[in-house]
Amino acid sequence: MKSLIAVIGAGQCDDQIYKKAYDVGRHIASNKFGLICGGLGGVMEAASKGCREAGGITVGIIPQEESAAANPFIDIVIPTGMGIMRNLLIIRAASGIIAMDGKYGTLSEIAYALQLNKPVIGIDTWEVSETIIKAKSAEEAVNTLIRIIG
Amino acid sequence: MKSLIAVIGAGQCDDQIYKKAYDVGRHIASNKFGLICGGLGGVMEAASKGCREAGGITVGIIPQEESAAANPFIDIVIPTGMGIMRNLLIIRAASGIIAMDGKYGTLSEIAYALQLNKPVIGIDTWEVSETIIKAKSAEEAVNTLIRIIG
Amino acid sequence: MKSLIAVIGAGQCDDQIYKKAYDVGRHIASNKFGLICGGLGGVMEAASKGCREAGGITVGIIPQEESAAANPFIDIVIPTGMGIMRNLLIIRAASGIIAMDGKYGTLSEIAYALQLNKPVIGIDTWEVSETIIKAKSAEEAVNTLIRIIG
Amino acid sequence: MKSLIAVIGAGQCDDQIYKKAYDVGRHIASNKFGLICGGLGGVMEAASKGCREAGGITVGIIPQEESAAANPFIDIVIPTGMGIMRNLLIIRAASGIIAMDGKYGTLSEIAYALQLNKPVIGIDTWEVSETIIKAKSAEEAVNTLIRIIG
Repeated sequence: MKSLIAVIGAGQCDDQIYKKAYDVGRHIASNKFGLICGGLGGVMEAASKGCREAGGITVGIIPQEESAAANPFIDIVIPTGMGIMRNLLIIRAASGIIAMDGKYGTLSEIAYALQLNKPVIGIDTWEVSETIIKAKSAEEAVNTLIRIIG
Repeated sequence: MKSLIAVIGAGQCDDQIYKKAYDVGRHIASNKFGLICGGLGGVMEAASKGCREAGGITVGIIPQEESAAANPFIDIVIPTGMGIMRNLLIIRAASGIIAMDGKYGTLSEIAYALQLNKPVIGIDTWEVSETIIKAKSAEEAVNTLIRIIG
Repeated sequence: MKSLIAVIGAGQCDDQIYKKAYDVGRHIASNKFGLICGGLGGVMEAASKGCREAGGITVGIIPQEESAAANPFIDIVIPTGMGIMRNLLIIRAASGIIAMDGKYGTLSEIAYALQLNKPVIGIDTWEVSETIIKAKSAEEAVNTLIRIIG
Repeated sequence: MKSLIAVIGAGQCDDQIYKKAYDVGRHIASNKFGLICGGLGGVMEAASKGCREAGGITVGIIPQEESAAANPFIDIVIPTGMGIMRNLLIIRAASGIIAMDGKYGTLSEIAYALQLNKPVIGIDTWEVSETIIKAKSAEEAVNTLIRIIG
């Protein structure tokens, strides 16, 4: 079984966040983990692109009914037809979570991650619990998470 | 169609919160709204009890597969077998939300409510957005919400 | 807790089926049961109309995200945003099922009902198991089902 | 994006079916498709084993909340916590379906596949529609399906 790291965050983001999410994806791949995400744009797309370009596998759990709605860097598309209810599936499938930026959708995912006692690393995101470990760089985020999930 | 108010919050709570949630349920019923909740204990049970005893209808969307898991004050039980993923169903079915106390499960529900632009009244709960309107008493919470949802 | 009977079947139907589904709804109400259904048109609408006009309560679990998509005879609308995945929720909430006409959506519901060992009465519908009890009239269907579920 | 073939069928099966499902898995992999299934035992396990041993990727969408419940031949585990409601997710993610043996759970999956107009090849399984194409051997099933989905 492939161990998966979830990258969650804004579906639209500026260049700086995009670059950081891309680097998170690269580090996930170079550490031999797979990436799981919501499969759409912004942080999700950037992390998928980085992961794939570094040779890693990418899984996208999308709200829509049709696979075509996923970003082009997803290898395994799970089209749920469940809308934002799919958020929880991303969290359940992940060994740990890296949250970047994001609005209320990301907050719901963070809440679920904390409820399920999964480790959460936060980069410029919601601060709703002291159990969220803050990181500044992509490398720091991935390394910290991998130290926890082994 | 019956307009429903969701009461969300801790599955276990102290007597003070229980009493307040009970009063919230009573005010919902006396204002001719129905109650929707997670159908289990604590805040959910108290609000259901209050609503039913004041003659209102109560709907419980429960995580389990079997109706028997609902608290005894639920009229319409929807056993989802979806675990905490059922949280979103409660929010979707509600015209507005009253959040009381609560931990990460409640936070995920608040996040969904904000994402869907539903009005949220908070009593001693998560403060993650300025759009959550704080209330102190049960009566204030219900009256404020009804003024918004009409 | 209100005991609910599910009426499942075609979302579009001819006048004869509509009339029969309407009568099923009436008999459900006059026997003090509630009705649960998919909340849309055809058989679902007819049964809802019959149940409400006979003074019964109607619950609709709809595929859409918004309550407004339900037919006008539903009292309690549960907008799931889950598409046809909501079919199982209808079955789980019901004490027994009356299936009328219907295509593959109805077949998925019948399959789930049989898998969960819920009694199924069939009127001009799929014959995939000998455990489905055939009925000809609305009255016969409702009476037979109620004899089983008590 | 990896094109996935779903193999659905009995969670417990005899040696003959197991062998055939194993061969289906092998043929899926040797044709450069991925396998998606319910991730548990019987037909699901056999197909996963065959696919992995022939170098293919395997995806398992399981009913449970924890990844550990998947069979040991699954690469990408999606633990849904949704019980049998997860059946539809398997169908949505697949380009085509091979159904083998199976009971009511398999019937619900076939119904969904037909409702979504996905091609279904059947080996000793439910015959509920003339659009299900019957096959006798694993090779025939996979070849027939791939001819359709391209």
